[in-house]
Amino acid sequence: MQQAEIGLIGLGVMGSNLALNIAEKGNRIAVFNRTTARTDEFLGEAGPLADRIIGCHTIEEFVAAIRPPRPIIIMIKAGEAVDQQIDALMPYLSKNDIMIDAGNANFRDTVARFARLDTTDFTFIGMGVSGGEEGARHGPSIMVGGREESWKRVEPVLTSIAAKYDNDPCVAWLGTDGAGHFVKTIHNGIEYADMQMIAEIYGILRDGLGKKAGEIGNTFGAWNKGRLNSYLIEITEKVLAAADPESGAPIVDVILDKAGQKGTGKWSVIEAQQMGIPATAIEAAVAARSLSSVKEEREAAQKIFGNPARVFKLEGGAIETDLELALFAAKIAAYAQGFAVMAAASKEFNWSLPMPTIARIWRAGCIIRSQFLDEITQAFTANPDAANLIVTPAFSAMVKQSLPSLRRVVAAAVTAGLPVPALASALTYFDAYAQARGTANLIQAQRDFFGAHGFDRIDGKPLHHGPWGSGA
Amino acid sequence: MQQAEIGLIGLGVMGSNLALNIAEKGNRIAVFNRTTARTDEFLGEAGPLADRIIGCHTIEEFVAAIRPPRPIIIMIKAGEAVDQQIDALMPYLSKNDIMIDAGNANFRDTVARFARLDTTDFTFIGMGVSGGEEGARHGPSIMVGGREESWKRVEPVLTSIAAKYDNDPCVAWLGTDGAGHFVKTIHNGIEYADMQMIAEIYGILRDGLGKKAGEIGNTFGAWNKGRLNSYLIEITEKVLAAADPESGAPIVDVILDKAGQKGTGKWSVIEAQQMGIPATAIEAAVAARSLSSVKEEREAAQKIFGNPARVFKLEGGAIETDLELALFAAKIAAYAQGFAVMAAASKEFNWSLPMPTIARIWRAGCIIRSQFLDEITQAFTANPDAANLIVTPAFSAMVKQSLPSLRRVVAAAVTAGLPVPALASALTYFDAYAQARGTANLIQAQRDFFGAHGFDRIDGKPLHHGPWGSGA
Repeated sequence: MQQAEIGLIGLGVMGSNLALNIAEKGNRIAVFNRTTARTDEFLGEAGPLADRIIGCHTIEEFVAAIRPPRPIIIMIKAGEAVDQQIDALMPYLSKNDIMIDAGNANFRDTVARFARLDTTDFTFIGMGVSGGEEGARHGPSIMVGGREESWKRVEPVLTSIAAKYDNDPCVAWLGTDGAGHFVKTIHNGIEYADMQMIAEIYGILRDGLGKKAGEIGNTFGAWNKGRLNSYLIEITEKVLAAADPESGAPIVDVILDKAGQKGTGKWSVIEAQQMGIPATAIEAAVAARSLSSVKEEREAAQKIFGNPARVFKLEGGAIETDLELALFAAKIAAYAQGFAVMAAASKEFNWSLPMPTIARIWRAGCIIRSQFLDEITQAFTANPDAANLIVTPAFSAMVKQSLPSLRRVVAAAVTAGLPVPALASALTYFDAYAQARGTANLIQAQRDFFGAHGFDRIDGKPLHHGPWGSGA
Repeated sequence: MQQAEIGLIGLGVMGSNLALNIAEKGNRIAVFNRTTARTDEFLGEAGPLADRIIGCHTIEEFVAAIRPPRPIIIMIKAGEAVDQQIDALMPYLSKNDIMIDAGNANFRDTVARFARLDTTDFTFIGMGVSGGEEGARHGPSIMVGGREESWKRVEPVLTSIAAKYDNDPCVAWLGTDGAGHFVKTIHNGIEYADMQMIAEIYGILRDGLGKKAGEIGNTFGAWNKGRLNSYLIEITEKVLAAADPESGAPIVDVILDKAGQKGTGKWSVIEAQQMGIPATAIEAAVAARSLSSVKEEREAAQKIFGNPARVFKLEGGAIETDLELALFAAKIAAYAQGFAVMAAASKEFNWSLPMPTIARIWRAGCIIRSQFLDEITQAFTANPDAANLIVTPAFSAMVKQSLPSLRRVVAAAVTAGLPVPALASALTYFDAYAQARGTANLIQAQRDFFGAHGFDRIDGKPLHHGPWGSGA
């Protein structure tokens, strides 16, 4: 029997879907699962695709079924289980075989795994896969970190299964060791911000303007035809339109307002903090999910502070256009922050992360996919050295057009008591970023006063302490 | 010669001042510095206090001069140097001697050092000291983490040197290993937020209302007599009143607006993130300092976006009262977040952090010292199990009184393009915290749509996925 081009361990939902995608695109694949019954069941589910799937009951059989050097995708729960799987595999591998962690790993673990395997005959790829179950099955966005020669070995298979945007596959090698998982982490951080901003606009429409779920869905549906066109806006329309099978009510109205999180948002913020890069929109989104989870505290607080009318009053008659532009401006800030974090990480970890390529492979397949990412691709291609996305000509024009709406919407929301943490963080980011003379001079004076930290002067003169004297 | 009650290594500014403070309060102290010339110089500076200071040129001499079990304060640059100093000391110590790191250590390093020394005959204290140079010399706030019996050994000396608030010494044992350094870290995080909020109000007065430094100083001076009374407001008045010796201009006007940071703000945010506790006001402050440091980017951005008039328009005639109350409300949010982070850490690290005690020892000596902290002490004493500072009766009343002003000020500032990231984060924190029914239901619907993450229902029924069907 002809050898497989690639192997995959772990036939959970994501692993199964990825294996089916690989087989469907004409590649032979060997699969292995710890519970062998699941392997047999999976072959049954695969239908005609089973012809290209080699189901294996032992690791020996599995490894023998793959053409060397063997790329082996490990799609299991992130964490220690991955190291255990690597240890279990190693005795059976040959020189230059490639273990590929396709789970949601913290990139720092990926860096450590890469370094550890670098001392062996084998090598390692950390591969970020975005797009959820559907993406895995029909075309995810794939972010690869590892040796370039390992990438060459897997490029044909990954190119065949990746999502396509205008026939352009959404997969790329982004750099060594943790580059792929880092970029996936920031993708998820941006996704948190994107979703939170949508939720805040939904809140204004629901609580500030008294709209029903269906009406709000129609609004998002209309926006999905314009500058906000994206997967997240598309599914927002769909979920708002969906009815609860139990009660017949809009499903969103019966869902509890406690959001879960799995860690990638938090990781994004922590890495941004480590490097001193503002990622306030992502931070606001992570904090909003945390606050959502303490519903009992929120209920108690509302009893104390009262339930305000939360009436959203905006001057002028174009409220929905203002909301659309506000969301768009805020979205630009979130993406600008995410890309700024990646630019800093690229230096910090010697990755040479290709910004236009990252934007390019996020255009399809992943959760934040959108036409907007095509515009980011173009902006970074035209201005590879831009200090920030918002100062590229294309985006600065968009900001100029949409920022006044964000201003009006945030002002009206905070006046009404409608929570807009992410929208407000985006607005204050623009305002602080575009202010040549800020107010940190006062902070420097205070720090020198109480801690003799010193300051620089605008005239460059070499006097670095204030005349505080002994009163300090 | 009578033995010393305590030893101190490291005669930099902080170490020297602490040693002088210890001697002045009637305690005998042995001192050692790597460069022995500095020890001699220090004894010369000590004047009559030198009678109680035993200057030592060798570690042997130094250790022999201290009464066992020997408490030895190490006041040197945080990091590896501390471990090297510990290693250098150990051969000379006796059972139960106590090494005390009084530097600005990351509490995770303190936890590791405590654990390491726990395997030896010696023990360790991580001691947070706040108050800058002046505090060290005349009365700092001291946060102690370590074994309770070690604390008993040093309690008399530390009590004698600590700042006093109504005769109550601002020092306490807060728990084991890293408790003291953790609380010091959060103190600094709150300090970042406090300073940033002051800077934002200063920005409104300067750029939005066209006030001169001296006038703004007078405003802060007036506020210092009221509810905002605190060291930071007091020094804000002073720095705004101070003239540049070079030009005669107000010194704040010649100071460059690039703020430095030494890491404790960042650590606060990272630890808050690790535990999933919103600390958005501290995050905003850290981000603002980071943005201040990229002045060249800000100058370039202002050229692109233009320098808006930034005219601050507030309805009604009581602008300064609104600003005062806005700052007060925002400050409450920052402190509430900081205390919430400590409450979570107390559980996470098994510390039983005493919230009223922490507020009590911050009332004097430290940088954020204020009358406000006395009110926090009372609130947590009366309500030890409050889920959040803002729901205690005293603080919920203050929030109700001041929140409308924060609303008006943030709305006017964002309308004018005046950057208010920390003030806005405080306001949106209140709004999200006091909203019983939030908008995370939409986020849960989206997450279930694209990732089958599931959700809970408000009616508790066991249906955890939406009717997305194959379209998902």
